[in-house]
Amino acid sequence: MERDLIRWLTNRIPSHPRLLVGVGDDAAIVRLPDESHLVATTDMLMDGVDFELNRHDAQRIGRKALAVNLSDLAAMAAEPVAALVALALPRQGGESLAKSLYEGLLPLAAEFDCPIAGGDTNSWDGPLVISVTAFGAVPPERRWRRSGARPGDAILVTGSFGGSILGKQFDFRPRVSEALWLAEHAEIHAAIDVSDGLSLDLWRLCEASGCGAAIRTSTIPIAKAAGELAAQRGDSPLDHALSDGEDFELILALPAEQATALVRSQPLGTPLTEIGSFIAETQLNAVAPDLSMQPLAVRGYEHRLDK
Amino acid sequence: MERDLIRWLTNRIPSHPRLLVGVGDDAAIVRLPDESHLVATTDMLMDGVDFELNRHDAQRIGRKALAVNLSDLAAMAAEPVAALVALALPRQGGESLAKSLYEGLLPLAAEFDCPIAGGDTNSWDGPLVISVTAFGAVPPERRWRRSGARPGDAILVTGSFGGSILGKQFDFRPRVSEALWLAEHAEIHAAIDVSDGLSLDLWRLCEASGCGAAIRTSTIPIAKAAGELAAQRGDSPLDHALSDGEDFELILALPAEQATALVRSQPLGTPLTEIGSFIAETQLNAVAPDLSMQPLAVRGYEHRLDK
Repeated sequence: MERDLIRWLTNRIPSHPRLLVGVGDDAAIVRLPDESHLVATTDMLMDGVDFELNRHDAQRIGRKALAVNLSDLAAMAAEPVAALVALALPRQGGESLAKSLYEGLLPLAAEFDCPIAGGDTNSWDGPLVISVTAFGAVPPERRWRRSGARPGDAILVTGSFGGSILGKQFDFRPRVSEALWLAEHAEIHAAIDVSDGLSLDLWRLCEASGCGAAIRTSTIPIAKAAGELAAQRGDSPLDHALSDGEDFELILALPAEQATALVRSQPLGTPLTEIGSFIAETQLNAVAPDLSMQPLAVRGYEHRLDK
Repeated sequence: MERDLIRWLTNRIPSHPRLLVGVGDDAAIVRLPDESHLVATTDMLMDGVDFELNRHDAQRIGRKALAVNLSDLAAMAAEPVAALVALALPRQGGESLAKSLYEGLLPLAAEFDCPIAGGDTNSWDGPLVISVTAFGAVPPERRWRRSGARPGDAILVTGSFGGSILGKQFDFRPRVSEALWLAEHAEIHAAIDVSDGLSLDLWRLCEASGCGAAIRTSTIPIAKAAGELAAQRGDSPLDHALSDGEDFELILALPAEQATALVRSQPLGTPLTEIGSFIAETQLNAVAPDLSMQPLAVRGYEHRLDK
């Protein structure tokens, strides 16, 4: 299991005075010799796992490979600085594939002012692998992590959830400008981006913060695509919103009165919704409209590893 | 061809005021918002290309994945700051494989004071891919690049060449401390690390610098392993020294009198050898002991890509 491995890594990798945030958050924060703080994150996408090269357009795949990293920077409220791109290309058609990947990736890099600084281009007989590393900058006093949520904080989310497999998994907009605005104008105690599912990533934030969460499920903003997918599959839009991965929205912990004010003023182009509260009990609860409460299953995408 | 693709990329990727060195050198140099300079490099290693998981020990593979990146930092005379590790693990046995990779990588990280800051762990049905990104710091005035060699400069190399496939490809020591010492004590005009072959990487440095090189082939330090490999294969140790990849030694351009002094004093634990001079003509020449000169074939490892 991926979780076991990350737990092993967290214990095995020694701490270091330069590692302000190490393994286990959305991105690392590293202190440079001149005391500035560098945010760094890497995501590897593989054919057959994160996309299917024979079904999906290479430009969308290239865009996604950068976008998932920008979403990790957003989860730390970091301003993008640059990115590196490493490719393992199938030998047959590898050159034109590489160009298509870049043609998808470069407009996003320009849009987020995140220039491609370099990379590594390889070919092999295996499937396409694209690994992007992005760097960002944060003022030294800014500390968005997974670990700062406090009981009583509101759970605020950007955008809507579920059904991203119908398109948003490729076309989502990383919440970088939203995060930078919120870092300036609100007291965010903790944040995570939803890559593996709302309930799973909320639970990760709870675990890191040593608390739990109570979600008013009727308030969760459900994406139109979640409804479409539920109609196709005969299940519930809410289940898709809670457990589908790759929404790449932000979950934020902040004082309840600030969340209320933000929800009222809606200062961003992207909707902000309060979906519940963090609680002291280390569990995930669903709160019904009649305020009855029951445990909520943590579901989402995890890489399965055999020992 | 990899070269065509990199040429396309160099033209296609727009320049940016933050990119002090972009695509095409051993590492990128990025100006951070606070004006400090970050060196960043990424290398992806794939099963069947850079190692064979069924023949090579996983710990040595993990070590190599970090070491090749440290070698790129050395080629920019950058001090290692931190590294990120992205893995695509075969599902079967993936967890124990990941632990072995880290058990090989972490001692090198500690030795070079380059802590692992984070990464991305994935599993799939494909072969092992390990992609490491390393960051380094350089003072803003330090500019080791491929592009600064001048006709008349000496060609200085660290260590010896050839036959790395017999073991050095895994066990080489990245020339970080050597580079940092040389950056302090010599006027290095250009540098590159030898990943794909002495003649090929020297030629890359020449191309970037707009000059050529004349190598006194009798002075090239030939590794013992090059002799062993030549004996096995019935070819010449010199050919192996000139065209085998993965020596991970440095090629340096510097004023001839400084090279002479360094070769005389041998200030480093690693031997320094002067093997020739940079010349104005954009060609690679071999100079025989009787000073007769003939063109030298550029040979080494390049990723083959079909369009």
